Amino acid sequence: MEKIVVLGAGVMGSAFAQLLADADNEVCLVGTHLDRDIIDSLLADGTHQGLKVKLPDNVRAFFNEELENIVDDQVRLIVFGVNSAGVDWAVSRIGPLLTTPVPIVMLTKGLAVRNQSIVILPQIVQEGLLQYGLSGTPVAAVGGPCIAGELAARRESSVVLACQNRVLLNRLLTLVDAPYYHARGSTDLVGVETCAALKNFYTLAVGYAAGQLEQKGLAPNGALMHNLAAGLFTQALAELQYFAALLGGQTDSVLGLAGAGDLYVTCQAGRNGRMGKLLGSGVLYREAKARHMPDDTVEGAELALTIGETVKQLIRNGHIDSRAIPLAVAIIAAVCENRPLEIPWEAFYR
Amino acid sequence: MEKIVVLGAGVMGSAFAQLLADADNEVCLVGTHLDRDIIDSLLADGTHQGLKVKLPDNVRAFFNEELENIVDDQVRLIVFGVNSAGVDWAVSRIGPLLTTPVPIVMLTKGLAVRNQSIVILPQIVQEGLLQYGLSGTPVAAVGGPCIAGELAARRESSVVLACQNRVLLNRLLTLVDAPYYHARGSTDLVGVETCAALKNFYTLAVGYAAGQLEQKGLAPNGALMHNLAAGLFTQALAELQYFAALLGGQTDSVLGLAGAGDLYVTCQAGRNGRMGKLLGSGVLYREAKARHMPDDTVEGAELALTIGETVKQLIRNGHIDSRAIPLAVAIIAAVCENRPLEIPWEAFYR
Repeated sequence: MEKIVVLGAGVMGSAFAQLLADADNEVCLVGTHLDRDIIDSLLADGTHQGLKVKLPDNVRAFFNEELENIVDDQVRLIVFGVNSAGVDWAVSRIGPLLTTPVPIVMLTKGLAVRNQSIVILPQIVQEGLLQYGLSGTPVAAVGGPCIAGELAARRESSVVLACQNRVLLNRLLTLVDAPYYHARGSTDLVGVETCAALKNFYTLAVGYAAGQLEQKGLAPNGALMHNLAAGLFTQALAELQYFAALLGGQTDSVLGLAGAGDLYVTCQAGRNGRMGKLLGSGVLYREAKARHMPDDTVEGAELALTIGETVKQLIRNGHIDSRAIPLAVAIIAAVCENRPLEIPWEAFYR
Repeated sequence: MEKIVVLGAGVMGSAFAQLLADADNEVCLVGTHLDRDIIDSLLADGTHQGLKVKLPDNVRAFFNEELENIVDDQVRLIVFGVNSAGVDWAVSRIGPLLTTPVPIVMLTKGLAVRNQSIVILPQIVQEGLLQYGLSGTPVAAVGGPCIAGELAARRESSVVLACQNRVLLNRLLTLVDAPYYHARGSTDLVGVETCAALKNFYTLAVGYAAGQLEQKGLAPNGALMHNLAAGLFTQALAELQYFAALLGGQTDSVLGLAGAGDLYVTCQAGRNGRMGKLLGSGVLYREAKARHMPDDTVEGAELALTIGETVKQLIRNGHIDSRAIPLAVAIIAAVCENRPLEIPWEAFYR
């Protein structure tokens, strides 16, 4: 029984907290300043309003301000359940409380830009913790097809735990050992994190097919547009391989749970697909966001805004071959420049 | 304008015939003995009943018995649009009529067993034509996500044309040049054909998720089973890689249109997914077939019946590592031995 702190009580952080509890850990689920209502409800009767489940008793819920009382030298693992915008905040909350490095597992998906390069979030966290004198904090991450609501319902879910340190990786795998959670290990942290972030981005494109279908309707013979969606899905996988290699990861991860598996599940449901559908039906990004999804975080679009200019710069200076990522270029133009999403078929499948 | 004979007037043969006509070829669409009603309808008013479209005038329809009058030395290409059970028949019809080898493109998906090995259908065709003194007939194949009804509606479709001869491959690509048809070339005939056949087989397993959902219902929090489906999808891709390598193909094809792309589209709709759903809801294969799908050809199950015993034999004699294909083993047990489909999670993602 290990003491684990989960920071962020949104749907994924909380579903993961329950998993850790099911795997017989002592779990402290700490809300961010935005999670006050969630913690109130958890304290009242254990119900998580977003997940619509009652969390088990061995998940103890705390307000943000209580973090100082919880983080002690018994904590064996810290889980970042915040979204990508909350990573710096999480580091700033945890950093001052630790005297020695404690392993971190990131549920957060995203990429960042440093010195005109694209980097994975675990690097950002490690750099951030260095500011607090915590050198060499091991940072692992979870990838793979795992919708939070299904995990919370204890439905079969398959994930890849990525960590460059194989000893720690094996320990982490034992910490998430529950019958419905099929975790495998990978040392390809960069490849897994690249896939985990970009699957949201590429789901914008696969969702385009649903938007085209809405715009053009059923064909006279009743045909849908599955072929179109599958073509975009395949091109996305090819480009994921390029990005994984570009960032220093392994292309094998793209064929696995973090890549193909997570892209598959993300295309079946969710906000990124919904935004893609809007783009595919001809609505421009800014109008789609402002009018149809003003209160939603569309992670794929946020990622486009985060890395878009850098990708263009890397193309200009020859570090990225634009012919390898025509779909990414089209998505970036649609989101960052508010242009219609146009599918460059001629450039595909090279 | 090249003269092309398409043998088999089912949905895929006929949709492909229209594509060839759109690409400005002179197309003779010849029905099998089972296609009499289809040809009657095509001759009456050009309507294909299965596709629910009117084929263009430059697709000319013929009955099986007319094949002798059509195959002359102007024919530049023969397309096999029959199903896997019709391959021997197609060879026996075409063989006697050819004096020199004419390239063949196979739309037919499947695998066969020869000398206790699993082989691709183009090999069967080449061997068969050898009996008619036709040595070295080039046989190409089409893979990738291409539902016939969508192709017939001229909706965007992406495919991979596979041919070991690069010169012929390039010629074939020009013969299918239509704005809605995004074809790329590959010389990995074995890898593409392996994927094309096995995607149906593995769709049985991905369909299992829908059956489980039907059996167990929505979770109390409304959760579906996308994670489960995505896990199976990913394991299928890993096993496709193993089979592609086993048969002598390239694993790269698995990440492309023939593998991930076609598996994606096949999982969205169709008979294999429907059978998988029945298996996933707990119905045994023989009952599922007899009671729920008596008149349907479930290609993935047919393939299991074709290669199942050979796969088991190859495992026994050490030519296949069963640890590499646990999902295939489970599917074969379900179809060939009529056992419940059970998902061996512990053996996955190795």
